[in-house]
Amino acid sequence: MTQLELARAGNISREMKRVAEEEGVDAEFVRAGIAQGTIVLPANVRHTNLDPCGIGQGLRTKVNANIGTSLDYGTVETELEKLRTCIEYKADTVMDLSTGGDIAGIRRSILAASPLPLGTVPIYQAAIEAVEGRGAIVNMTADDLFAVIEQQAKDGVDFMTVHCGVTQRSVAQLRRCKRLTNVVSRGGAFLTGWILHQQRENPLYEQFDRLLEIALRYDVTLSLGDGMRPGSLADATDGCQIEELLTLAELVERAREAGVQVMVEGPGHVPLDQVVANVQLEKRLCRGAPFYVLGPLVTDVAAGYDHIAGAIGGAIAAAAGADFLCYVTPSEHLSLPGNEDVREGIIASRIAAHAADIAKGIKGAAEWDRSMSTARRNLDWEEQARLSLDPERARRTHGRFGSEGATCSMCGPYCAMALVEEYLGIPVARC
Amino acid sequence: MTQLELARAGNISREMKRVAEEEGVDAEFVRAGIAQGTIVLPANVRHTNLDPCGIGQGLRTKVNANIGTSLDYGTVETELEKLRTCIEYKADTVMDLSTGGDIAGIRRSILAASPLPLGTVPIYQAAIEAVEGRGAIVNMTADDLFAVIEQQAKDGVDFMTVHCGVTQRSVAQLRRCKRLTNVVSRGGAFLTGWILHQQRENPLYEQFDRLLEIALRYDVTLSLGDGMRPGSLADATDGCQIEELLTLAELVERAREAGVQVMVEGPGHVPLDQVVANVQLEKRLCRGAPFYVLGPLVTDVAAGYDHIAGAIGGAIAAAAGADFLCYVTPSEHLSLPGNEDVREGIIASRIAAHAADIAKGIKGAAEWDRSMSTARRNLDWEEQARLSLDPERARRTHGRFGSEGATCSMCGPYCAMALVEEYLGIPVARC
Repeated sequence: MTQLELARAGNISREMKRVAEEEGVDAEFVRAGIAQGTIVLPANVRHTNLDPCGIGQGLRTKVNANIGTSLDYGTVETELEKLRTCIEYKADTVMDLSTGGDIAGIRRSILAASPLPLGTVPIYQAAIEAVEGRGAIVNMTADDLFAVIEQQAKDGVDFMTVHCGVTQRSVAQLRRCKRLTNVVSRGGAFLTGWILHQQRENPLYEQFDRLLEIALRYDVTLSLGDGMRPGSLADATDGCQIEELLTLAELVERAREAGVQVMVEGPGHVPLDQVVANVQLEKRLCRGAPFYVLGPLVTDVAAGYDHIAGAIGGAIAAAAGADFLCYVTPSEHLSLPGNEDVREGIIASRIAAHAADIAKGIKGAAEWDRSMSTARRNLDWEEQARLSLDPERARRTHGRFGSEGATCSMCGPYCAMALVEEYLGIPVARC
Repeated sequence: MTQLELARAGNISREMKRVAEEEGVDAEFVRAGIAQGTIVLPANVRHTNLDPCGIGQGLRTKVNANIGTSLDYGTVETELEKLRTCIEYKADTVMDLSTGGDIAGIRRSILAASPLPLGTVPIYQAAIEAVEGRGAIVNMTADDLFAVIEQQAKDGVDFMTVHCGVTQRSVAQLRRCKRLTNVVSRGGAFLTGWILHQQRENPLYEQFDRLLEIALRYDVTLSLGDGMRPGSLADATDGCQIEELLTLAELVERAREAGVQVMVEGPGHVPLDQVVANVQLEKRLCRGAPFYVLGPLVTDVAAGYDHIAGAIGGAIAAAAGADFLCYVTPSEHLSLPGNEDVREGIIASRIAAHAADIAKGIKGAAEWDRSMSTARRNLDWEEQARLSLDPERARRTHGRFGSEGATCSMCGPYCAMALVEEYLGIPVARC
């Protein structure tokens, strides 16, 4: 039985208990959320070393980190190093998006080493195999695609991005909308090309029941991909994007009916003043299905610093109700991320998620800030470093410029914290 | 005559023309905004090499970068290097907050080299001179303080942070509010200590007319500092902060009546869901005076990455109407920023300001993104780098991992941009 079926039957699973403990909420709250479909708990029955994590309404906003090779770069070693970075800097989930080397082997190595829920985009592997075996992506068959999905499910993949909403109607919208940047999702592009070439419907849509069957068997959480997400601010919230969202909303209902856990992916590139509307639309149309946003990036111009543009959009989205932030790294739009980019991407998204959790009133969120500010008031530098997102960086930055007093090299003896405490008569550490 | 007096008299100055040209708006719009007090144009009559910039409603959101020495670190050379970074990465203004070495000499060197409007916080110099000459900050006299203000005005400083709103009433509020982090503004701390020790009123408040006289003579724009700004989320939007804001609102009126340009400084540490309220309060209480926010930081825990926490808060604040973002660097709360921190801080704030400008509908803002996305669609990497905030970083990131095709090392031949264009029949560059 899937976590959704268990929850509907009134059972609180070991995984639900673990999520409740981790979040500091009642296990019954987690069960009820899963039963309603407002929470997902990605936990493939074959991912035996999993430490499960819940995603959805009332829980802490989660952060996903994408790793994986490309044709140009990466080996199992480089990707396992990135996985360790994900664990150390506290990503909540990881997606292996490998498109180079021994894709299945890399995935299995990552799964074996990952207590974090692992996601994939199976069409990447299917597309590469189609190029190798059939000469072109567009020659891929439905059976090819479902075979890869089944293989990945058997391997223990906890959640999969499936671009079921890219349909012949999407392609019609694409022609109508005259977008600046057409399709920027790789999976979306593969399927758009396939639909145009084959003049047939997307198998992930047409044979959605076949997908549900596999997902049900292994309890794979479906992450309904937004292949038509805007790739530039100019294309945001257009007919093409919203038409796909309507399709995804129908498929959410069908997945829930089948007992399959499901979430919905969202943009992308979105002007700051449209971010809240995008979250509200998804929540309304998809009846509270967990919303997994990529960014959103609030400007197109931040190449080299897209983790910052993504943190701005992600914080606003999550405060408005988005549940799950896919990180963006400084190398977005420029190259495959290296290990340092992974760290920076995770931290930027965690700042966004945490800022939103405070605004959402998530249990325990504001306490972290209170502890940090108490340490700051006490000029307790080691405690400040310990409480920070990157203790090593905090220690290194504080230690430079030879500040040796109780304060820091910004203010030295003119530290406001120290001065006012003295005059207000409250004893604190002094320089 | 100050720019405000000129504008009120119906005159469009050379500086107003330059600002209008830079912003792509009518000079009459700039004049009217200055006359109403919703725009300031910091331009000390003695800052002869100034390229002026306007700050306020209807104009592009501006970014300030703080530089300057501390007792622990910095020389005139390190600070001139930071100034060059400010110019290269397009900060709109610079503040010299030096508290170490030959403070007056450093300021004059920076002024001589700076086409950007220069701001200072004169009480820093006054406090240090009081320590040196009178044994303690709290022994500073009103004459000492005004002498420094006059000296800095004569040197050509374009805008000055003056913590006129820290009063005996603020201190009473401070005791009442039982804050977690009392006072975190250095100027605020100096004056709180002074008030408590001297048992007298803040001279910047009591002798505000004396301040107006100096500002009028040199056309120094007053930036009414928020000495009582919250230093932790727990203290945000409390009685102490809002009491000070009410005082600043009164002083805005008095400055305007005197023909002195004035803006208002704002927090600080603010939970994401209180940022908009803070902007609305300032705009309403201070009758549209330009709002200059420090961050705001939407979490206390981001030490080492506070530029990201500040970009989130700054983007939301600016989209809600804040006009001027004081950057925050990665070294905030930990040490004096180095040159690299200055660059990262400026870029993070510029992303925030630009994202907000798109949301605000500022003229030309969205066009930048459209150009970038066009270059992206065309796989024109040199144009993408040229349009980015940090062309060198964009080129370096794109060039690594040996991607030599027309696409990048993220997707290689599986580039969505390239694939879909092919199937939609629109010719673009191909790998």
